[in-house]
Amino acid sequence: VDARTGLPVVGMVGAGQLARMTHQAAIALGQSLRILADSESDGAALIASDVIIGDYRQLTDLREFARGCEVVTFDHEHVPQSHLRALVDDGITVAPGPDALRFAQDKIAMRTKVTELGLAVPAWAAVSADAGGLATVETFGAEHGWPLVIKAATGGYDGRGVWVVGSLDEAAPVLEQLLGQGTAVLLEQRVDIKRELAAVVARSPFGQGAAWPIVETVQRDGICIEVLAPAPGLTDDQADEAEELALRLAGELGVVGVLAVELFEDRAGRLLVNELAMRPHNSGHWTIEGARTSQFEQHLRAVLDYPLGSTELTAPAVVMVNLLGADGDVEPKAIDERVHHFMAHWPDVKLHLYGKGWRPGRKVGHVTALGPDLDRTREQARAAAAYLMNGDAK
Amino acid sequence: VDARTGLPVVGMVGAGQLARMTHQAAIALGQSLRILADSESDGAALIASDVIIGDYRQLTDLREFARGCEVVTFDHEHVPQSHLRALVDDGITVAPGPDALRFAQDKIAMRTKVTELGLAVPAWAAVSADAGGLATVETFGAEHGWPLVIKAATGGYDGRGVWVVGSLDEAAPVLEQLLGQGTAVLLEQRVDIKRELAAVVARSPFGQGAAWPIVETVQRDGICIEVLAPAPGLTDDQADEAEELALRLAGELGVVGVLAVELFEDRAGRLLVNELAMRPHNSGHWTIEGARTSQFEQHLRAVLDYPLGSTELTAPAVVMVNLLGADGDVEPKAIDERVHHFMAHWPDVKLHLYGKGWRPGRKVGHVTALGPDLDRTREQARAAAAYLMNGDAK
Repeated sequence: VDARTGLPVVGMVGAGQLARMTHQAAIALGQSLRILADSESDGAALIASDVIIGDYRQLTDLREFARGCEVVTFDHEHVPQSHLRALVDDGITVAPGPDALRFAQDKIAMRTKVTELGLAVPAWAAVSADAGGLATVETFGAEHGWPLVIKAATGGYDGRGVWVVGSLDEAAPVLEQLLGQGTAVLLEQRVDIKRELAAVVARSPFGQGAAWPIVETVQRDGICIEVLAPAPGLTDDQADEAEELALRLAGELGVVGVLAVELFEDRAGRLLVNELAMRPHNSGHWTIEGARTSQFEQHLRAVLDYPLGSTELTAPAVVMVNLLGADGDVEPKAIDERVHHFMAHWPDVKLHLYGKGWRPGRKVGHVTALGPDLDRTREQARAAAAYLMNGDAK
Repeated sequence: VDARTGLPVVGMVGAGQLARMTHQAAIALGQSLRILADSESDGAALIASDVIIGDYRQLTDLREFARGCEVVTFDHEHVPQSHLRALVDDGITVAPGPDALRFAQDKIAMRTKVTELGLAVPAWAAVSADAGGLATVETFGAEHGWPLVIKAATGGYDGRGVWVVGSLDEAAPVLEQLLGQGTAVLLEQRVDIKRELAAVVARSPFGQGAAWPIVETVQRDGICIEVLAPAPGLTDDQADEAEELALRLAGELGVVGVLAVELFEDRAGRLLVNELAMRPHNSGHWTIEGARTSQFEQHLRAVLDYPLGSTELTAPAVVMVNLLGADGDVEPKAIDERVHHFMAHWPDVKLHLYGKGWRPGRKVGHVTALGPDLDRTREQARAAAAYLMNGDAK
């Protein structure tokens, strides 16, 4: 507890945009997020008061950081299980806890569990060096077709750690590299999908659950570029199914905080679980303006075992478009000029910049538009984002 | 400019709730507000990274603080004119500038100017020791009736520096005290008002203006307790008049940033200017959730000469209720318990706590409710605030 305010101290490991936006939400609740940052120039470290510079891979740094926190939570999934368990043994409340977080850290553990629960996932197999490696790939390809997807079971994000391979020859070097560095490997059928969806929910230790409307997420090169809320053209049955699936997963896995379930919708309209994240997630950024309670406030409420907030939409259509650094250097001065023009052209589109350098392909911010209908709102958000990214509106 | 982000640095003198909420808005714009705080325990100092502890009455502290800021702005009106002018002479951009800010610092200068502009104010007179003092009060009382209002021309806020006196005998000690300490004194007719309104607008150096809908402000003991947006029962003509009056004042006074014009509506429906504030204002807190652009973001946009944002409402009715420390001590632990219960009972009412101790009568936070109709929304906001303040819902 912060003695100055009587209010709890939440510690977040990681200081990227998720911590940055969680701190904004913490301020309204009378709190100040404590942040473990790699460096003083991390996006959240630039704006928060209670920042500790340290290495989340070092247990001593984590222990130092956790002292005095009511609860420790995460802006990423990379804290090793052994450290998480050591913190729990120290008496620290960790949310989500290591037993839950395992399923967001290890793609094989997640698929094993989700399959056990009877939920649909794309066909998959684990590959290990001693079980024959390439032979497993050959068998899997023969059964489920080529191309197939190879994923590093741990450590991937934003399209990293994912390879689509068209043949055994293409698979071989990927496999060799991953197994050689001791990374477990997952094979996955490449599903012919109609689109991707996401179900974002929150769960508190008390067991309360809350779900935002199901959204469509648009990807390019494995990176989310747009989120449409609510997902257009979804049947009520599909929406119910996705919501129930996510709330059930949150309960079965013992998640505390926000859970984002990335889903495939296949050509037949079936929903398959793709990936899980147990933290505020890019597919929920639209909730800052688009829902009565943002995913950042909700995550704080959940990890503190406060009652959850209303997930009601604030507009019929909400569209979030990510700002990705474009190819070529962008002078810092140019960013500020673009912000001027953006504000002049789109006075009702909301801007979120993350305090990061504009390197190519990097998520440096997002914009959110809200309106009465999806098409116009989407067009507006896209044009605004294109202008900010490229200096013109193409 | 912040070299790490290429984005501008705004400095705000004062570290209360206005700076705290302005920092939240700055984060979204990719910025980090630089704050001049009296103490490390000030509400905004608790949550921001770029805090300088200093005394706004000391020019050296102000100069140190202003170095590297694109613009210096304010969370209160108390910086002396001489210091403001010295900063301007140093080449610092000060917004609002000293010529404008004078009218928010000196109630006599404001009334002189507003009267010159032909806008309605309650009948008033300045009192000075050499011009007879009490004799002026007697003449004013005979002309405009008793009781009358005595105001300190400078330094007052939240009902401080205001006395309603029923007779010359009651006026004498107030006058003696104020004139004795060298404070200029204003006499004002006590207008028989129907209610109070506020027109909140913003103006950029470029000259762009933007107005939020006119709101009704409900006062108790000279302190704002509730804001209803938009003001119920206002005619279109009244709304237009109030908005035009505020935008005209912003232009005529050369205001840069947010200008709040507190208005009286008298029994005949006429609007009289009561007070001015040139900064985000309590009557605009509802804009955080209730308008597309909050007054805090708009203030930043205005002082940076960015184009202004849309002031469109996000719901038909928005009600803000202040949280005032109740009589008797509140244990810090009790605040957190109340927050739990508040969240359980009012999952769609938004909470803002300022990081301040709950002393009697002090503004420690606010709640905002949004809904389709005013009556239900107001009831909800009032009940939630009453619960948070008193631990029960009366």
